[in-house]
Amino acid sequence: MSLTPRIAIDAMGGDVGVRVMCAGAAMARHKHDGLRFLLVGDEVRIKAALENHPNLRAATDIIHTDGVVTGEDKPSQALRKAKSTSMGLAIDAVKRGDAGGAVSAGNTGALMAMAKVALRTMPGIDRPALAALLPTLGNNDVVMLDLGANTDCDANNLTQFAVMGAAYARTAMGLERPRVALLNIGTEELKGTDEIRDAAAMLRAAKGLPMDFTGFIEGDKLSRGDVDVIVHDGFSGNIALKTIEGTARFVTDLLRRAFTSSTRSKIGFLISRPATELLRHHLDPNNHNGAVFLGLNGVVLKSHGSADAKGVANCVHLCAELIEKDITRQVTQDLANFRNGDAA
Amino acid sequence: MSLTPRIAIDAMGGDVGVRVMCAGAAMARHKHDGLRFLLVGDEVRIKAALENHPNLRAATDIIHTDGVVTGEDKPSQALRKAKSTSMGLAIDAVKRGDAGGAVSAGNTGALMAMAKVALRTMPGIDRPALAALLPTLGNNDVVMLDLGANTDCDANNLTQFAVMGAAYARTAMGLERPRVALLNIGTEELKGTDEIRDAAAMLRAAKGLPMDFTGFIEGDKLSRGDVDVIVHDGFSGNIALKTIEGTARFVTDLLRRAFTSSTRSKIGFLISRPATELLRHHLDPNNHNGAVFLGLNGVVLKSHGSADAKGVANCVHLCAELIEKDITRQVTQDLANFRNGDAA
Repeated sequence: MSLTPRIAIDAMGGDVGVRVMCAGAAMARHKHDGLRFLLVGDEVRIKAALENHPNLRAATDIIHTDGVVTGEDKPSQALRKAKSTSMGLAIDAVKRGDAGGAVSAGNTGALMAMAKVALRTMPGIDRPALAALLPTLGNNDVVMLDLGANTDCDANNLTQFAVMGAAYARTAMGLERPRVALLNIGTEELKGTDEIRDAAAMLRAAKGLPMDFTGFIEGDKLSRGDVDVIVHDGFSGNIALKTIEGTARFVTDLLRRAFTSSTRSKIGFLISRPATELLRHHLDPNNHNGAVFLGLNGVVLKSHGSADAKGVANCVHLCAELIEKDITRQVTQDLANFRNGDAA
Repeated sequence: MSLTPRIAIDAMGGDVGVRVMCAGAAMARHKHDGLRFLLVGDEVRIKAALENHPNLRAATDIIHTDGVVTGEDKPSQALRKAKSTSMGLAIDAVKRGDAGGAVSAGNTGALMAMAKVALRTMPGIDRPALAALLPTLGNNDVVMLDLGANTDCDANNLTQFAVMGAAYARTAMGLERPRVALLNIGTEELKGTDEIRDAAAMLRAAKGLPMDFTGFIEGDKLSRGDVDVIVHDGFSGNIALKTIEGTARFVTDLLRRAFTSSTRSKIGFLISRPATELLRHHLDPNNHNGAVFLGLNGVVLKSHGSADAKGVANCVHLCAELIEKDITRQVTQDLANFRNGDAA
């Protein structure tokens, strides 16, 4: 693995496709000129998109394929055609060592399945977890995992998610001892499901981990910045993450309505536009784009299907950072220490 | 049961206690002068609080007790002392027919347990569900249930919640055919847990119900107003509801920061204050206070522990409305029709 990483990009995934993926990669390379790329997909369309980005073209090789994974493909269908699709070949480049990591904006379930089969999970891990960063009122973002499709998780899964999420926060956010909490419906020890209570007991009992387990956290505290890592199964995580998105949109829609409700408030809005732009910037999901699969022997990131070029650039940047900081080795090591109980 | 209902109020529950409960009841009675009350709790403190509210005092009887349920009491502890507590005696008044319904701002788990034991569940119902109204961008609020502590629900429970939630929307919101959806992590039929998929199949197969089952809804659509009733287990519901609360606060906190970030934006804020007041009004949880237990043989409402007098008044109003519209009969009948499969 090179220290100026090469990143494989599934150029055909996402709602908007090859032009946005190329524009995002070009934007990322403007900020980090050591980056090199493998663009995977329809060569003709990729070359056409590269014409606007000579800086990117000079650092890019293309792997041609006609095959794509669609949003409707089930993971099993996607697996059968893996080697002929842009998503499958991007992951394959990571497996072969031709790329340090892969980025795709395609079907999340297919990406998880293909990455799991091609790269395999780390020792002792049944299920990779999908981790994303959320903005908070504090100084740091918060890591939320799992956001994948692991709807039923046992206490072992949740505990592993906690260890992997902490490793991610240490690597990507430079925190020495991330504060880790389990999402629950109350903060008392008796609250919640057996799985969550058992996971809490295991995390409380674990000694010497490079993290501080702070217990349970409720849904109204997710964005407070009181903790660095929030652990949950994929079902609760999906509900929480999408509810955050929906509510942020709900409040900003109400705000827009309120500001256009009278001439007076329109004038107030115009004067305070820098303030509302600041709010918009803070809430723009493109500024937090890029979810990473943890527990795999390789770096694979999911870019949001509707991300714009800036969002793709952020995801590519995060991918480069995780490669450079060797997240895979870090997570592997923390899991081994946790398993062996000699984390100290 | 009288048509000008008498409402039993646990005067000792909630974070702020007897003065707020009395002020709320008095406010409710100013708008609806047929209302009568049974205030349950410490007679000395209740009488002192009533001194400011002669209009309420004239329509109130007091049941004295020293006993209270605390926020720390487990449901089993609360049950053992039920008959000596303000919460237990308020519910008991409903059971005896001395009151048409009860309102408490105390410990939710204890309230659920006591109400279940005293009033019993309707035929075929294992678990009462706690239903609350949430604001949306549409013309109507949306009913969300279960928000109680039913963490593990099977397909039968979820299906009953759907029927009861629809009966509630018909009764409280006057909708002929409420649109009902199940909260899930995707809208495709294959998404989610077995319990959710099975419940969806049962609701699709049920014919002649006075509601339209619209399938699955995701967390980002809760506040859109596209449906009237959203069904979930108590765990997901708690996560969703608290995440809505937390995110709304997060966005308004960001907004406050943005508006105070410069003199210019402060001026803009002052000019557009009517707009931001409108937003604040819409998001104020006191305007949507009052969660109802469905599936019990009697009307019991939970007022938010931190509700102010306006919030308590809204909860009391809702209680009166549900008594007047005979919600208990409506829910019983819809459940019987659903069970017998002859809902047409």
